[in-house]
Amino acid sequence: MNNPSAVLTKIGEIVIEDRPIPQIKDPHYVKIAIKYTGLCGSDVHYYQHGRVGSFIVEKPMVLGHESSGVIVEVGSEVKTLKVGDRVACEPGIPSRYSYEYKSGNYNLCPEMAFAATPPYDGTLCRYYLLPEDFCVKLPENVSLEEGALVEPLSVATHATRLAKLTIGDNLVVFGAGPIGLLCAAVGRAFGANKVCIVDIVSEKLDFAVSKGFATHAINSKDKTFEEILEFIQNSWDGERPSVAMDATGNQYCIANAIRLLEKKGRYVQVGMGRQTMDGFPIAEVAERELLITGVFRYTVDDYKIAVSLIASSKVNVKPLITHRFKFEDVKKAYDFSKEGKSIKIMISGPE
Amino acid sequence: MNNPSAVLTKIGEIVIEDRPIPQIKDPHYVKIAIKYTGLCGSDVHYYQHGRVGSFIVEKPMVLGHESSGVIVEVGSEVKTLKVGDRVACEPGIPSRYSYEYKSGNYNLCPEMAFAATPPYDGTLCRYYLLPEDFCVKLPENVSLEEGALVEPLSVATHATRLAKLTIGDNLVVFGAGPIGLLCAAVGRAFGANKVCIVDIVSEKLDFAVSKGFATHAINSKDKTFEEILEFIQNSWDGERPSVAMDATGNQYCIANAIRLLEKKGRYVQVGMGRQTMDGFPIAEVAERELLITGVFRYTVDDYKIAVSLIASSKVNVKPLITHRFKFEDVKKAYDFSKEGKSIKIMISGPE
Amino acid sequence: MNNPSAVLTKIGEIVIEDRPIPQIKDPHYVKIAIKYTGLCGSDVHYYQHGRVGSFIVEKPMVLGHESSGVIVEVGSEVKTLKVGDRVACEPGIPSRYSYEYKSGNYNLCPEMAFAATPPYDGTLCRYYLLPEDFCVKLPENVSLEEGALVEPLSVATHATRLAKLTIGDNLVVFGAGPIGLLCAAVGRAFGANKVCIVDIVSEKLDFAVSKGFATHAINSKDKTFEEILEFIQNSWDGERPSVAMDATGNQYCIANAIRLLEKKGRYVQVGMGRQTMDGFPIAEVAERELLITGVFRYTVDDYKIAVSLIASSKVNVKPLITHRFKFEDVKKAYDFSKEGKSIKIMISGPE
Amino acid sequence: MNNPSAVLTKIGEIVIEDRPIPQIKDPHYVKIAIKYTGLCGSDVHYYQHGRVGSFIVEKPMVLGHESSGVIVEVGSEVKTLKVGDRVACEPGIPSRYSYEYKSGNYNLCPEMAFAATPPYDGTLCRYYLLPEDFCVKLPENVSLEEGALVEPLSVATHATRLAKLTIGDNLVVFGAGPIGLLCAAVGRAFGANKVCIVDIVSEKLDFAVSKGFATHAINSKDKTFEEILEFIQNSWDGERPSVAMDATGNQYCIANAIRLLEKKGRYVQVGMGRQTMDGFPIAEVAERELLITGVFRYTVDDYKIAVSLIASSKVNVKPLITHRFKFEDVKKAYDFSKEGKSIKIMISGPE
Repeated sequence: MNNPSAVLTKIGEIVIEDRPIPQIKDPHYVKIAIKYTGLCGSDVHYYQHGRVGSFIVEKPMVLGHESSGVIVEVGSEVKTLKVGDRVACEPGIPSRYSYEYKSGNYNLCPEMAFAATPPYDGTLCRYYLLPEDFCVKLPENVSLEEGALVEPLSVATHATRLAKLTIGDNLVVFGAGPIGLLCAAVGRAFGANKVCIVDIVSEKLDFAVSKGFATHAINSKDKTFEEILEFIQNSWDGERPSVAMDATGNQYCIANAIRLLEKKGRYVQVGMGRQTMDGFPIAEVAERELLITGVFRYTVDDYKIAVSLIASSKVNVKPLITHRFKFEDVKKAYDFSKEGKSIKIMISGPE
Repeated sequence: MNNPSAVLTKIGEIVIEDRPIPQIKDPHYVKIAIKYTGLCGSDVHYYQHGRVGSFIVEKPMVLGHESSGVIVEVGSEVKTLKVGDRVACEPGIPSRYSYEYKSGNYNLCPEMAFAATPPYDGTLCRYYLLPEDFCVKLPENVSLEEGALVEPLSVATHATRLAKLTIGDNLVVFGAGPIGLLCAAVGRAFGANKVCIVDIVSEKLDFAVSKGFATHAINSKDKTFEEILEFIQNSWDGERPSVAMDATGNQYCIANAIRLLEKKGRYVQVGMGRQTMDGFPIAEVAERELLITGVFRYTVDDYKIAVSLIASSKVNVKPLITHRFKFEDVKKAYDFSKEGKSIKIMISGPE
Repeated sequence: MNNPSAVLTKIGEIVIEDRPIPQIKDPHYVKIAIKYTGLCGSDVHYYQHGRVGSFIVEKPMVLGHESSGVIVEVGSEVKTLKVGDRVACEPGIPSRYSYEYKSGNYNLCPEMAFAATPPYDGTLCRYYLLPEDFCVKLPENVSLEEGALVEPLSVATHATRLAKLTIGDNLVVFGAGPIGLLCAAVGRAFGANKVCIVDIVSEKLDFAVSKGFATHAINSKDKTFEEILEFIQNSWDGERPSVAMDATGNQYCIANAIRLLEKKGRYVQVGMGRQTMDGFPIAEVAERELLITGVFRYTVDDYKIAVSLIASSKVNVKPLITHRFKFEDVKKAYDFSKEGKSIKIMISGPE
Repeated sequence: MNNPSAVLTKIGEIVIEDRPIPQIKDPHYVKIAIKYTGLCGSDVHYYQHGRVGSFIVEKPMVLGHESSGVIVEVGSEVKTLKVGDRVACEPGIPSRYSYEYKSGNYNLCPEMAFAATPPYDGTLCRYYLLPEDFCVKLPENVSLEEGALVEPLSVATHATRLAKLTIGDNLVVFGAGPIGLLCAAVGRAFGANKVCIVDIVSEKLDFAVSKGFATHAINSKDKTFEEILEFIQNSWDGERPSVAMDATGNQYCIANAIRLLEKKGRYVQVGMGRQTMDGFPIAEVAERELLITGVFRYTVDDYKIAVSLIASSKVNVKPLITHRFKFEDVKKAYDFSKEGKSIKIMISGPE
C-alpha cells in the first residue's frame, strides 16, 4: 500500500485502506511519516458510538490524533525543519484568519480542522501533512514513542498554565487516567510540592504515587467530602489545595474538587462529561472568591513546553505506555482498549 | 438618649435602646456621628428570619451597615481625618494579623467583625467607632445620603474590578435590584458601552434603562435562553457579552448568564442564593474557556473607588433612593421594606 | 489618472504619479477608495530626511498610513464587509505564520509590511488593498475624517491597555503633540479622573485642557522635578500618578515621568527618541517596584476599541484637525507641516 | 552576658555589648534565641562607611539581619509557633496600618522597621523579638544554617515571582555573588531550563555551574554585547532569554541584560547601584515591548516559599557558605568579609 490508513468505516469496524499519499500544496507544510500513535479515549468513543458529543462520524474517517513521526518532505517556505527531523505532531489546524488565532487562542477557533474529529481524517496512516509550526522537533533524548505522548501531555500543560500553577501551590487532581496522571505530573513539574490524586481504583492510585506522578493519593470510594478534606489536611500540615483539577467529568468529583480549594483557589475543568452538572457549589465560589475555568485542548506554546518537560526529565511519560500494538493490529488495539486494562496503548507504524 | 440604637431584639421586633456612647481606645480609631443608613436586604432578612445563612442572631443586635456620618472625635494616631469630616463608613473590620489582610484580601479574613452580622452590632445608632482607614472622606460634591450608598456601590465595584472589566467589554447583568443596578452602572463607568440588564419585572427594567443604569434590558419571564441570546445579539451587532454578572442567586439566571458569554468571557457571582445549584453549564465553561468567579463584599480600594465614581459623576446613585424614613421610624422602614415596593430605603439620623 | 499616488521620489520631493490600480488576489482582501489621510511625524521625517531610524527610503515610495476610506470591492472569502462600507484602515500587515501573530503580538512581527515604511508603499493614493480583518467598519456617527485619526488613536489605546489603566488610576503624560494628547484623552476615557499633561509650549497645554484632553497641565520649562511633583500633588490632594507616559522621546521627560510615579506605578514609553538615554532612575524603579514598558504601534483589538472610543464620544478627536489640504496639494501639506504650526493636517482625496 | 549583641559603635568598630533581654509586650510576638546569622554586603557597608544610601548610622546599632533561631517564648495570642520551634527570621516589620501592608506590598511600607537599618537594631544578639507571622518554621530537613540563608533566598524568590518566571522561560543573570547565584538557582527551580550567569570572575562562574546554580556561564570581561548574545544563542539553539536579572547594579550589566531579552521579555533589577544609570536602551524597550521592573526585598509568601525551596531540595543553598565564625569573632568575620574571598560567611551563636 502507498498510504495505509486505519479507517473507521462504521461503528465497531476499522479497516486498513490504502489512501492516496497526500501532496504538499501550501509551501508552509511538511510531510510526515507517522511512527507512533497513542490511542485516546475519544478515538475509542468514536469506534464504539460513532460520535463524541455533537461530532458525528458520517462518512469513513481515518482515526488517530496522538502521533509522532519523521519529516520526509518540506514545502518551499519551510525554514526550521528538514527531512529526517523527528517531530511531535499537533493535530489541530486552525484558520490563520480567525479572531481566535490572531488573539492567541487558536484552540477556540471555530474553523479548527482537528485530526479524527469528523469530517477530518486522523493520523493513523503512513503519511500526514502538517504546517511547519504545528510540528515540534524532538530533541535527541526524547524518543518517538514519547513524542506520541506529547498530545495528551499538552492538554495537561495547557491546564496547568491556565491555572497559573507555580511554586507555592498545592494541587489536587480527580481522576487517575492518562490525563489526570499527566495533570498531576505537570503540576509537580511546575512547582507543586504536594499533589494529591483522587480516584476510586486503588491500583491506579498506587501506580500514580509509585511512578511519581503524584505525592499523595486517596481512594474516594464511599468517602465523604469531609473525609477527603481531612486526609489532605492531615497529609499537608493543615493546608488545602490552592489548585484543583478534574479529569473525570463526573459531577461529584467536580463539586468536591472545587470545595477542597482554599480561599482564592483556582479550579480547572479538564475532563469532559455531561453538558451540565448538578450540585455546583456556587456559594463557596463566591464566599471564598474561587476561580473556575475549563480548558479545551491546547494552544500557543503548549506543545513546545510539553516536549521540553519530557526532554528535561521534569515529566516521565514512559510509564503510561502499558501496551503496544503494530499498525496492522489496530482493530485489536481498539478492542483491547475497551476492556479498560490499559493506561495508554501505543500503535507503531505503519512501516 | 446618649446613643439611641436600633436593636433587633427578636424576630420581627426592633426597639430603639440607649446604648453607651462608645469610647476610642485604639489610637487609630475615629468616632462618627451616623447621619444616614440605607436598608439592605440582609438586614431585612435578619429582621424577618433571625438569620442569614449560618449567621444566627442569638442576642439583641444593633442593625444597619450602609452608613455615612461626620467625624466627632479622632484617636491620637489619626492623621488623615479631623473632626467635622464627612465620611462613608466601611462596616467590616478584619484582623490586621490575618493572612488575608496581609495579602490584600481582607474581605476573606476569618476574623472579620462586620456590622450587623452576629455577634457584631451595626451602625443604626448615633455614635459608631471605626479605624481611620475604614472611613473614606466624602468630597464636597458628594452628599451624606450618597455616602450611605457607597457600601452597596463598593460591592458592585469589587465585582467589576475582579471581572477586569474595561473598555472593549460588553456586560450582561441578571437582577435589577439595587446591587444589579449598581453592577450595571459600574460596568458602564468602567467602560462597557453595551450593558444589558435582565429581570422579570418590567418596571425595574424600565427604571434601569431610563435612569441610565443600563443601555439595554430584557424581561426574561417565559423566555428561553435562545431568545435572550437572540435579543442581545440583535441589539449588539451580533456580539455576545464578554462579562456577565448575576445579582439574583437564582440558578436559572446563573446558568443563562454564563451561557451567554463569548469565548474567554468572565462571569462574576454577586448575588447570594442557595449553597449549590443545578444545571451548571460545565461543558460550556470548558469548551469556551470561560472564567467563573464570585465576590464577597469588597476589599482594598473598593470603597475609595466607589466614592470617586460618585464624585466624578460616573455613577449616579441618587435615583436608587425611593423612600426615606427618620430614625425613630426605623421599624416602619423595615416593615415597608418587606412589601417590596422600594428600591433603596434611606434612614436619617438619629439626630 | 487611474490611481493617483503621492510618491516620495527623493528627499524633499513629492510627486503625484499614476500607479496601477491594485487587484485583489487573496480572497480575504478588500479594495478601499481612500478618502482621508492624516499626516504623521514619521511621514514628514521621511520627506525631510529620507529615513526614520534604520528604515531608509531607497526607491520611490508612496507616503501616508493614517487613512480611512470606502470599500469598493471585496474578495470572495470576505464575510463582514461589503461594497460601500466606510472603514478605518489598519496600515500594517503581519505574516499570518509568524510566532508573534500567533501569540497575539502581531505588532512585533518581524515580517510586518507597514504602509509608508520602506520598502512598502503607503496609503496616499486612490485605491489601496487590505485584508478584511485589518479594516474596521465605522459606525454611522463616526465620520471618515475621524476614521483617519483612528491610527494615532490606536497607538494611545495600545499604550493605555498595556498600562492596564482603569478607574482608580491617575495619569501624567509628557508631550502635548497629537500622540500625547490622545494618550491623555484615552487615559481619561479608560477611567483616570486626574490627567496631567506636561509640555514646554503653553499654547499646547491650554489647548489640551480647554479641549478636554487633560484635566491639568504644567509647563515644565525651567522647572525642576520637585516643582513638577509639587504642582501635581497640590492639584491632586497629595496623590502622585499611578500611570505615566512619555510621548516626547526626550530623556529628561522620561526620567521625570518615571520619577513622578507612586509605588508600583506603571510607565509606558510611547514616543520614539534616541536609542539609549542617560539619567534613567534605576534605583527608584527598584525601590518603588515600578513597572516600565514601551509600546510599538498597536495590536489585536486596538483599532476596534479606538473606533468605539470615538463612536461612544469617550474621546473627541476632531479638535486635533487644525488644517486641511486637498490631495493635489499634498506637497504643500508636507511643507506646511514642517513649520510646526499645526497639530494634525488632514488630506482629502484623491477624488 | 544576658543578651550579648554585636554593636557597630562607629565606622570600623564592632563591640560585643550586653543589651537588656527584650520582653514580649505585643501578644502576637515571639522571643527567638538567635542561632545563625549570615553576613550581608549591606552590613559590611555600614561597618566600612557608616551608611548605605540615605540610611546613616547615627548611634550605636546592633548589626545583622540574616538569621535563624529557636523560639524560647511566645506571646499569649501566638497560635502557630511554640517553644522549641526552629525558625527563619524575617527581619523587617512593617506597619499593620499602612496602605502598602494592606494591599500586599508590605516591603514598600514607609514605616518599615528593618533590622540593622538605622535606627533599628539587628539580629546579631542572643535574643530577638518578632511577630509570629514574620517567623517561618523550618521543616526537620532544613538546618538552622540553611534557615539563616532564607533571607537572601527570599530576595531571589521575590524577584523570580515578580518576573512571573515559569516553565518555558530562559533566564540570564548578571552577577555571580550570593544574590545572583540565588536568582539563578531560584530561576531553575521555578522552571527555567536554561540559565546563563554572567560575571567577570571566572572562579565565580565555574562555581555557579559546577554547583548547579546555573546551566551556562560566560565571562563578560572584554566581551561586547554581540559576543555575549552570540554565546547565549549558540548555547540555547538560537533562543534569547525571556527573563533577565541584574544583581550587580552596574549600568553596563543592566543595559546588556535588557538588550539580551527576546520580544516581550521581562527584566528585574535586583542589585542596588547608583541612583541613575546612563545608556539605558529605551528604544529597545519600546520596540520589543520589554517589561522592566525592580524589586525591593521581599513580601507576602516569599519567606515561606523560600523555605519550601530548600525543604524540597529545589535549591541547594549550602554551597554558598564558604566560611564560618563564632559570635565572639564577629569583628574578624567582618574584616575577613572585606577581603572578598568568601561567598557567604556564617556566624554562629551567641551561645
